[in-house]
Amino acid sequence: MLRIGIVGASGYTGVELARILAGHPRAEITVVTSRQHAGQPLSRIFPSLRGRVDTVCVNPSPEELVRQADFFFTAVPHKTAMDIVPPLLAAGRKVVDLSADFRIRDLAVYEQWYQKHSSSELIKEAVYGLPELYRQQIKNARLVANPGCYPTSVALGLAPLLRERLIEPATIIIDAKSGTTGAGRSANVASLYCEVADGFRAYKVGGTHRHIPEMEQELSLLAAEPVTITFTPHLLPVSRGILSTMYARLDHDVSETELQKLFDDTYRDEQFVRVCPAGTLPATQYVRGSNYCDIGFKVDRRTGRIIVITAIDNIAKGAAGQAVQNMNLMNDLDEAAGLTGTPFFP
Amino acid sequence: MLRIGIVGASGYTGVELARILAGHPRAEITVVTSRQHAGQPLSRIFPSLRGRVDTVCVNPSPEELVRQADFFFTAVPHKTAMDIVPPLLAAGRKVVDLSADFRIRDLAVYEQWYQKHSSSELIKEAVYGLPELYRQQIKNARLVANPGCYPTSVALGLAPLLRERLIEPATIIIDAKSGTTGAGRSANVASLYCEVADGFRAYKVGGTHRHIPEMEQELSLLAAEPVTITFTPHLLPVSRGILSTMYARLDHDVSETELQKLFDDTYRDEQFVRVCPAGTLPATQYVRGSNYCDIGFKVDRRTGRIIVITAIDNIAKGAAGQAVQNMNLMNDLDEAAGLTGTPFFP
Amino acid sequence: MLRIGIVGASGYTGVELARILAGHPRAEITVVTSRQHAGQPLSRIFPSLRGRVDTVCVNPSPEELVRQADFFFTAVPHKTAMDIVPPLLAAGRKVVDLSADFRIRDLAVYEQWYQKHSSSELIKEAVYGLPELYRQQIKNARLVANPGCYPTSVALGLAPLLRERLIEPATIIIDAKSGTTGAGRSANVASLYCEVADGFRAYKVGGTHRHIPEMEQELSLLAAEPVTITFTPHLLPVSRGILSTMYARLDHDVSETELQKLFDDTYRDEQFVRVCPAGTLPATQYVRGSNYCDIGFKVDRRTGRIIVITAIDNIAKGAAGQAVQNMNLMNDLDEAAGLTGTPFFP
Amino acid sequence: MLRIGIVGASGYTGVELARILAGHPRAEITVVTSRQHAGQPLSRIFPSLRGRVDTVCVNPSPEELVRQADFFFTAVPHKTAMDIVPPLLAAGRKVVDLSADFRIRDLAVYEQWYQKHSSSELIKEAVYGLPELYRQQIKNARLVANPGCYPTSVALGLAPLLRERLIEPATIIIDAKSGTTGAGRSANVASLYCEVADGFRAYKVGGTHRHIPEMEQELSLLAAEPVTITFTPHLLPVSRGILSTMYARLDHDVSETELQKLFDDTYRDEQFVRVCPAGTLPATQYVRGSNYCDIGFKVDRRTGRIIVITAIDNIAKGAAGQAVQNMNLMNDLDEAAGLTGTPFFP
Repeated sequence: MLRIGIVGASGYTGVELARILAGHPRAEITVVTSRQHAGQPLSRIFPSLRGRVDTVCVNPSPEELVRQADFFFTAVPHKTAMDIVPPLLAAGRKVVDLSADFRIRDLAVYEQWYQKHSSSELIKEAVYGLPELYRQQIKNARLVANPGCYPTSVALGLAPLLRERLIEPATIIIDAKSGTTGAGRSANVASLYCEVADGFRAYKVGGTHRHIPEMEQELSLLAAEPVTITFTPHLLPVSRGILSTMYARLDHDVSETELQKLFDDTYRDEQFVRVCPAGTLPATQYVRGSNYCDIGFKVDRRTGRIIVITAIDNIAKGAAGQAVQNMNLMNDLDEAAGLTGTPFFP
Repeated sequence: MLRIGIVGASGYTGVELARILAGHPRAEITVVTSRQHAGQPLSRIFPSLRGRVDTVCVNPSPEELVRQADFFFTAVPHKTAMDIVPPLLAAGRKVVDLSADFRIRDLAVYEQWYQKHSSSELIKEAVYGLPELYRQQIKNARLVANPGCYPTSVALGLAPLLRERLIEPATIIIDAKSGTTGAGRSANVASLYCEVADGFRAYKVGGTHRHIPEMEQELSLLAAEPVTITFTPHLLPVSRGILSTMYARLDHDVSETELQKLFDDTYRDEQFVRVCPAGTLPATQYVRGSNYCDIGFKVDRRTGRIIVITAIDNIAKGAAGQAVQNMNLMNDLDEAAGLTGTPFFP
Repeated sequence: MLRIGIVGASGYTGVELARILAGHPRAEITVVTSRQHAGQPLSRIFPSLRGRVDTVCVNPSPEELVRQADFFFTAVPHKTAMDIVPPLLAAGRKVVDLSADFRIRDLAVYEQWYQKHSSSELIKEAVYGLPELYRQQIKNARLVANPGCYPTSVALGLAPLLRERLIEPATIIIDAKSGTTGAGRSANVASLYCEVADGFRAYKVGGTHRHIPEMEQELSLLAAEPVTITFTPHLLPVSRGILSTMYARLDHDVSETELQKLFDDTYRDEQFVRVCPAGTLPATQYVRGSNYCDIGFKVDRRTGRIIVITAIDNIAKGAAGQAVQNMNLMNDLDEAAGLTGTPFFP
Repeated sequence: MLRIGIVGASGYTGVELARILAGHPRAEITVVTSRQHAGQPLSRIFPSLRGRVDTVCVNPSPEELVRQADFFFTAVPHKTAMDIVPPLLAAGRKVVDLSADFRIRDLAVYEQWYQKHSSSELIKEAVYGLPELYRQQIKNARLVANPGCYPTSVALGLAPLLRERLIEPATIIIDAKSGTTGAGRSANVASLYCEVADGFRAYKVGGTHRHIPEMEQELSLLAAEPVTITFTPHLLPVSRGILSTMYARLDHDVSETELQKLFDDTYRDEQFVRVCPAGTLPATQYVRGSNYCDIGFKVDRRTGRIIVITAIDNIAKGAAGQAVQNMNLMNDLDEAAGLTGTPFFP
């Protein structure tokens, strides 16, 4: 059994990692850390885990920590991650980092959108953990930067079109909607039930969300040219789920049948991407609790635009699920181990 | 007191009309019709109305109906409306029709998107009931076609920009999200609690929603040139509310300050449009239960696009509230009579 | 116009008081206080209020405060209230206090369940603000203790039965469910959207909720004998609403028809109590946003128990609405002024 | 692999059976029936199942049906079940029936609460499928009557107390709250999103819910004396989950510590019952999507009552999960096979 450590286990990504790993046939959680809850079983913080993950939270020194697991997930805020990851690697451990700290390849871009980077030497080594795009590199990586939730939903939806140069990159507009787990588990008024329920709003409008440079990096690589996007995130009154509605002008006259074939062919061998049958579209409730990314599209002939829609569970394929998928690849396990659960609906 | 008839009172628009009119100082409901519930008090169907609107539903002939009220709201499906409205007008009554039947000025367009029109002679006479655009005409109208919910949220948001030719019409993309009251009160599996809750999806993607010709009609008039839009509606797990996120390329180099002034100036005298202060944006929960349309915007300098966001309550400003606003204008009452309620939050 | 001050306006009770008072024909808000938000318009904290209540929050000394209004609502936590109320009264102002500080007539009981009381001399003077029970006293009061939300829903439901000695007091069990506004607007993890949504739980089980002594006080007065209850509150994934399901053994053989008549007779002249027609029962969605208390009941012949169910909006009839009702009575205004809104459904 | 047939697969119990069985190591779905959807893949009705359960719905004759599977779940309404089950048994198949038709041992009671029984000869043979009470009988059964959702939550919570005669049976009151999946997937107005969301109500109040005779049967057997209960179900605005709050007078002076030990001892070896640690209580969100029944309790010393609270997922432990647990037992498989998933939170 692969011994697993979760650094920063008391957030929603932490409990989802614990849930998934509790059902993993080849991994077991041996250490979970939480500064705030040290001394308490993780199942006291999250009673859903009782009887499944009763590991007691600790707050060890890096030296103690590395001894207690073979593989680590760092589920801490950016900036914190860049301090925690180096000693883990130095001790010979492999790491999937769920923060933004190692996702941006261009240090200047990272420092413009986030802050000064204290472990910039690791950026070059880190592999962007989107298995559908970087499977081979992930298999050989020591450090995987787990993608952001929005970028996952966007890159998978646009990859086939950009690679085939079927859309005009300058016309890409992404209107994305996320469940409230995306706001994290810290106590703040804006995330209270009564502020979110029965409501809907946009936030970080006008090109200011920090996932933008990450998306542009990956879309530019796919397009083999610089891509600048308009991206608007919204907050949904649901716990889990991201639906991204993506617009672009079609560059060629291509039929829906051909496009359907392109998507089908691209993802035929992918276990976690489901292309919707022609005429159907994704919905977040159909991927809830699973590692699936569902993709559908329509062409608006009146305006020459394609609308691509993807749905993921933001804390599964958008965070913890994808992290376990990466862990499997990095350890030569079945890529789907622990991730075979069917979405729960309703 | 103006005697009011509601034709088709058992839907969500009906109960909202009843709620608003129950608090109207110059109007009283004298007749409500419902084929299905004839003989029952409206407050039996909607116990929220008990003690406020206990009028018994009837299903009278047109001749009986016209005698029982001075003014009518027809809240029936399109196609049904075009048969019900003519006898009401013929009897000298004024009507606000909440269906789509008299919104589209071009008969051919109507018949392409809907079906054959049996009262096409009234199309020319009908006034499109968006008071912020057509106040004078509404005051003089016998028949007002109450706008669709999506078109209301779109036209108010884009009007200042199109009139001033600040955006390129061909680049307009509208990503709209509606509460579930928009799906009506008929029993169907897709609207069940368990199908909608904790989920999110798009529908009628690719230029197929019937509000498109209505929006294009109004946007074209505002732009003084033909406008074709990409429009994607989504279903929100909330009861009330529409948030429309609208994208367009700015045609001129105009500052956010100038744009803010434009919106402020445009709507300064409007009682039901609130332009958000610079730096803030609308949310559906802040207009819930009110006749307000809140408008905010941001410019994405990186891509040269403006993002305009509007929020309305889809059954208030998007239906029943606006209908009462039109009724007030048509009867020379205070435009805000019955509509002064503050949004209920939380 | 009566000049109104709201002390502690930034909570959910504060915004609801502002919403109701914005529509009050004889009162106007002249001062709102908030330590945390001093200097900001209340409509910045609650954008729902924009254009309706744009009063800027202040944090004045008691001396400044009393000059700025004729009548005060104190919507602050218990303990804080007992310090704020005396100077307001001393300056000749009338007060509705929404905290628990003046509800309990027996100082020892108060100090057992809460803490030491620093203004105990006012307890005797304070009138318990349930107009359906204490209307005359409220009219003459300087200080009204606005009832708790649960006690309001309980006392109105059981009053007719206890007064007529139809139930055995020792068998009363109250299973109550409250919306999340009841937990207040402070930032804490337990009230986050993702902790509450799609879930349900009991809290303060086993006779520990602080509303118990308040309920027992009022039920004992109604029964003219000491009443001890079992009370279990639960947290509903809704923003507004309390449904209390109350059980007791019938002491006499009384028919449902007689009981219906008793409830009907008791509340016939009450504007804010709606007894459900025989065979129907209340639901929180039918009182949402209104000052109504809906009451229904059934007898279980198999067990000899009556089940009484009441529904209120916990921040309206359960807090701000009832407070305005009390204000109206204390100022010789129409008891329903500002409170005539019809419940919002859906 | 055990070949499984699901009769009546298009309801919420059907999709949950499919979800669970898709992850079962020793069973595979070989036939699913649906009159309404015959010819469509189950994953077209429930896109959550795409790639996991793409079996096409059929509507075969009994003779065809029995050939296609070794084991059947009948997830059809009561009355329908009593016609479908006999030919399956006659062909040598084992069956878990999820309807009420074989739960009530006393034919007269069944016919009083339901209707005439056409397969009453099977009632004696059928085993009540609550493994924690009837494990041995289930192992040997051909026909298991899967318990109702409410009865499961009630029997597990009260069993230890009744067996030990610690509570007075005549004082039992059960206030239960169920998620909306309990109302099924048929199109009816009362189950629409806008009717249920942001609301709460009781239904079938006063001893009329059909689960009452089932509960009284099992509680009477546990108590070894006739038990009559007061039971009030409520409808929660959540999809999944039942929380039952149960009240009874303690017959003996027993400490919370002793009671905790009793519950702990009773369920120590049960894989699907989790007794909450002292001082904590269940919540539906902590069992969502799992086969767990969580149990907690408190004593109210002031009134001498114990309050027992249980939480289950109504379509898992309350229906499909328990059905699979029974299937495992009937086929000598690991009782937990397919049911090891950790609850989904948030």
